[in-house]
Amino acid sequence: MTTPTTRAHITEISGNRARDRRDYLATEEPMEIRVTAQGGERRTVAITMRTPGHDFELAAGFLHGEGLARPGEIKAIGYCTDEDVTPEARYNTVTVALDGPLPDLPALDRHFVTSSACGVCGSASLDALRDRCRPLPQGELSITPEILYGMPYRLREAQGGFGKTGGLHAAGLFTADGALVALREDVGRHNAVDKLVGWASLTGKPLAGHALMVSGRASYEIMQKALAAGIPMVCAVSAPSSLAVDLAREFGMTLVGFLREERCNVYSGRERIAL
Amino acid sequence: MTTPTTRAHITEISGNRARDRRDYLATEEPMEIRVTAQGGERRTVAITMRTPGHDFELAAGFLHGEGLARPGEIKAIGYCTDEDVTPEARYNTVTVALDGPLPDLPALDRHFVTSSACGVCGSASLDALRDRCRPLPQGELSITPEILYGMPYRLREAQGGFGKTGGLHAAGLFTADGALVALREDVGRHNAVDKLVGWASLTGKPLAGHALMVSGRASYEIMQKALAAGIPMVCAVSAPSSLAVDLAREFGMTLVGFLREERCNVYSGRERIAL
Repeated sequence: MTTPTTRAHITEISGNRARDRRDYLATEEPMEIRVTAQGGERRTVAITMRTPGHDFELAAGFLHGEGLARPGEIKAIGYCTDEDVTPEARYNTVTVALDGPLPDLPALDRHFVTSSACGVCGSASLDALRDRCRPLPQGELSITPEILYGMPYRLREAQGGFGKTGGLHAAGLFTADGALVALREDVGRHNAVDKLVGWASLTGKPLAGHALMVSGRASYEIMQKALAAGIPMVCAVSAPSSLAVDLAREFGMTLVGFLREERCNVYSGRERIAL
Repeated sequence: MTTPTTRAHITEISGNRARDRRDYLATEEPMEIRVTAQGGERRTVAITMRTPGHDFELAAGFLHGEGLARPGEIKAIGYCTDEDVTPEARYNTVTVALDGPLPDLPALDRHFVTSSACGVCGSASLDALRDRCRPLPQGELSITPEILYGMPYRLREAQGGFGKTGGLHAAGLFTADGALVALREDVGRHNAVDKLVGWASLTGKPLAGHALMVSGRASYEIMQKALAAGIPMVCAVSAPSSLAVDLAREFGMTLVGFLREERCNVYSGRERIAL
């Protein structure tokens, strides 16, 4: 069973000095929510990336919020005990037994998903990615700490929508020299990255050899989008999740977090930072 | 066609003084991404809440990131021109014509959704909510600005995981006296709220007459979860989106944003704040 925080070895860079230390990451693991009806029918209603802990509450709250099951309609909640689910995935699958028929799922307008037979877990998510993405090559990008430190300021300066509303996430694409090539904003963090990648796709601009900077945190999904687009370095103003770090290490990506005020943490791919 | 920012009349409270002013909100509207195959087959692959603008890039980037279509496989991208889609929804539906067969959609593990015949738009989302949620009654909650100002400190103090990792969102449930009843943390903002609502559901705790405080922004989805749970007031450290404000006004909820350092903005339901 995974814990809400995960220990990691990281490199802290301050000015031009680097030191290795241990740190804690917020754990991110997928969780599958299944419902079973009184007659024995069973269906997956959602797979969501979450921090382990209070998982039964998450399942009950999700079903309540989506209008799929009210508190009185829940008979039991438990972790998966199926033989066909790997031990790693058992604590990532929560089954809610309903005191009635299955809810009307086609009315769901988000979070509707499918899963593999062996259950969901972080390493299965990385395995699935391996089917369509290869590790990114070294040597196409090298960035100095000074260039890194300038990126948050450049991103913020260029964020027209944020200045006006305070409510928009940004994703910016930077060259190794620290030039901002393009910036996109959105209420959704993932959408800002999708817009940037889509811009490059549609205009034929290369993404390899560039760094992606995001105004918030770095999650699994952000890293997955950067990987699919071939962007070797992701820098975040805030923290990365455990699964974002796992993905970066697995696929040879550089992941920088807490990039602010002349310092940052490097979680993976330190060799692309020219100290 | 909607714009990336939306004007709104709000009330700014500083200390014990309130003044009405105009402000800009980040626009949040659903967008449906459809793909059509060479043979004419058509399918919806995602509905995502987004900020209007760069919509074709969003569609292309999403398909690329999910491994559904590479840049060379896209023949054309356009807004929906179907007669059966309402004019309001036309700019919220992007159709991507692929130079080949439909991608293998069952492999998708998130964002898989269904939509209504008339297309997607913010007011249709509110209409759909009206089928299962009623406006929340006035008079069950009254909170003074002093109590409000203390809430972010209490939330932060109680956030064990954030202090350790810097990477967890929090949702806290407060009484009208400012007492923190329960707090949940998660890498996902929505999950923190689901866990809190699930805790109340499973333990039979009432949510009416309480305020929900979130450590980040207030989106449509956060407001929808609070509404379904019967929580009349949502307070956010950061900005709300346009659709979060629309929802709050439509369903008689109080929405407070930028709650920090003895000030806040009230976007809806000012009568629950005792000046």
